[in-house]
Parts: sequence; structure tokens; C-alpha cells
Amino acid sequence: MHHEHHLRSSDTIRDIVIGMSDGLTVPFALAAGLSGAVAKSGIVVTAGIAEIVAGSIAMGLGGFLAGRTEADHYNSELKREYDEIERVPEEEKKEVKEVFADFGLSPALQNQIADEMAKDKDKWVDFMMRYELGLEKPEANRATQSALTIGISYVIGGIIPLSPYFFVANSQQALYYSCAVTMVCLFVFGYFKSKVTGQPAVAGALKVLLIGALAAAAAFAMAKLING
Amino acid sequence: MHHEHHLRSSDTIRDIVIGMSDGLTVPFALAAGLSGAVAKSGIVVTAGIAEIVAGSIAMGLGGFLAGRTEADHYNSELKREYDEIERVPEEEKKEVKEVFADFGLSPALQNQIADEMAKDKDKWVDFMMRYELGLEKPEANRATQSALTIGISYVIGGIIPLSPYFFVANSQQALYYSCAVTMVCLFVFGYFKSKVTGQPAVAGALKVLLIGALAAAAAFAMAKLING
Repeated sequence: MHHEHHLRSSDTIRDIVIGMSDGLTVPFALAAGLSGAVAKSGIVVTAGIAEIVAGSIAMGLGGFLAGRTEADHYNSELKREYDEIERVPEEEKKEVKEVFADFGLSPALQNQIADEMAKDKDKWVDFMMRYELGLEKPEANRATQSALTIGISYVIGGIIPLSPYFFVANSQQALYYSCAVTMVCLFVFGYFKSKVTGQPAVAGALKVLLIGALAAAAAFAMAKLING
Repeated sequence: MHHEHHLRSSDTIRDIVIGMSDGLTVPFALAAGLSGAVAKSGIVVTAGIAEIVAGSIAMGLGGFLAGRTEADHYNSELKREYDEIERVPEEEKKEVKEVFADFGLSPALQNQIADEMAKDKDKWVDFMMRYELGLEKPEANRATQSALTIGISYVIGGIIPLSPYFFVANSQQALYYSCAVTMVCLFVFGYFKSKVTGQPAVAGALKVLLIGALAAAAAFAMAKLING
């Protein structure tokens, strides 16, 4: 069963990865940036929470609407294809043949395929959807579930780098703890993310760590610069 | 040429949409949230710039590494497929047949297709990559270009809601201008985004506006709550 090597991560895991990788990075970098400019952790917490709320809604709702749009798009194309195989069947058969012409099959074989496929309209349309248009049927309720998963993952990811600021009143001091805890989490998250997506795990973990550190360092430097 | 209706937006436009839709939303909501908690625009500007820097790096670099990972994945699967058609050609022919069995073609025709396709190894592998694994060949330099486009779009999107805070010292006052200018931009952006992706334009514009307004209102309420 060598097929299993090709196995891809599930959509839910993909959504967790999307939400958490931004959640761990952006609020962390924002908090780091603000720590370079304001002394009180209170303001960092306020800004951080505002960012987490904004980011999770933007990503979650964005994900929801993107999922809905995808489903609408699929259904309207599906209707069009059913319509077209009734209205211009020869045109659609030609499209089937073109798919196989691209793969170097002989015209005789192209014709046979098109004629046989035309016998079952559902399968014919399914073929056109997938191989002419490259569209997969979206799962039902996918949009809502995706929105929730991405949003919640963003919140969980974002709370981690912010948590030291709840307990340490001086923002510069809190930043040290935030860096330590976030770096560890970015590495662990990057490790599992790479495992799940079939990438080299340590290299992937270092990449994720690098993005987080770079974003935080740049935000810190920029905030210092603005505040003189 | 009814094909043209199916035309999808280019990758560059997709990247601009990704960067700008988050750029317009998250910094806007963060600024709105902070305006509910601190009176001075200076802190809002510092936080906003830190967020824009962090967000553009996270998204841009994230996009770059995702593109690189996709290319690596494609190349390793490509190598595997070439290897497999040499090592276990009958196995791979069976996989070609399975693809067509799913579309209801007769076993005789499946055999003919598999035999004919096996004559040209490049096209055979190309078929397996696209139709068995669902992988498209990534464009060269796509990753770098994608990173830059997403990152720059995020910065441009983020500067718009922040701009009033540069000129108006009182954050609550600046928020009014920020809301006005951002709402207009969200609507216009949503309108063009929908046009480009072939969705109903006004409905799409209202959706984008809604996400931005909801994120900002929630961030504002949350920041008030924490500081109140």
C-alpha cells in the first residue's frame, strides 16, 4: 500500500495550523514591539487582547465566508456543467477529449473515452468538475467548523505569548518570559506541524521559530524607533 | 469560448487580496480597540505600526515558506512517481485504471488507456501527479513573489486605518476618521475582490465590510472591558 505515503493532513489539522501559526506569531511580536515602547504591562495586555479578538474574528469569519464562497462557486459551476452537457453535448465531449489529448492519447481512444463517459451524466459532470475545472466538492458544514477551528486556535496561540504580561507589571521584564515561553511553543508547534504535513521536523520547527523571532525583533526595533 | 467564464483570478491578485483583506481589518480593529482604552494617539500609532510590521512579516514570510514547501513537496512526489513507473509499472498502470474506473469506464477501455499512456513516461507521470495526487507544478520564483506581494499589501492595507492617528492627537477623535476612511476602503476593496473572484460584487463588499466592523467593534468592547 504505497499510497499511504501520499496521505495528506486532514482539513481540521490544517485549520489548527493556520490559526495557531499566526496566533503564536503576531500577538507575540506586537507585545514585544510595545514592550520596547511602553513600560506598563497593562497597555501591552490591552493591545494584545484587542489584537487577539480582532485577529481571531478576521481569520475565523474570513475562513467561514471563504468556505461559503467556495461552496457557492462549486454549486454554480455544477449547475453550469449539467446545463452544458444537455445544451452543447458535443462541445463538452470535445473538452473531455482535450483533457486526454494533453496526455498524448490517440484521437481514436479520446473518442471512445468521451462516448463511454457520456453514458453516465453524473460521472461525466463529476469528471468535468474535477479535471477540467479542478474543483473538489466541498464538505457540508465545512465553513462553520473551519471558522471555529481557526478562530479558537488563534486565541489559544495568542494567549501564550501574552500570559507573562498578566503577572509581571514591568513590560520589559515580562518580555523576557514571553520570549522564552513563546520560543519553546513555536519550536514545539513547528515540530508537530512539520510532522503532520510530512516535512523534515526539526528544519520545519526552526523555520517557524525564525519567522516568530524575526517578526518580534522587527516589531520591537520599529516601536523603539518611533518612540525615539 | 464559454471556457472564459471559468477563468480564475491570477495568483498575484489572490496574494493582494490575502494581504490587503487582513491588513485593512486587523490593524483597524486593533487601533479601534486601543482607542477605547488609551487617550493618546501616540500609543495607538506605536501599537499599530508594531502590528503591521509583525503581521506583514508573519504573512509574507509564512507565504514564502509555504511556497517553498509546496515546491519541495511537488519535486519529491515527482521523483517518487518517476521511480515508481520504473520499479512497479503494473502497479502504476493499475492506479491509472482506478482513476477511470471511478468515472464508470469499462475495464477494456481502462486497459487501453493505461497501455497508451504508458508509452510516454513524462505524460504518464504528469497524469499521476495531477489526477492521482492532485498536485499542480508550482511556478518558479512563485514563493518570493508571493511573499513580497502579500507583505506589501498588508502594509498598504494597514497604513490606511492608522493614518488618522498620525494627525489627530486624541485617539477617540482619530477613531471616527479611521472608521470613516476604513469603511469606505473595505467596501471598495470588497467590491473589487468580489468582481475579480466572480462573486456578486455588492454582497461581497458588504461581507468584507461586516467582518471589519465586527472585528473592530469586538476589539473595542473587549479593550473597554479590560480597562473599565
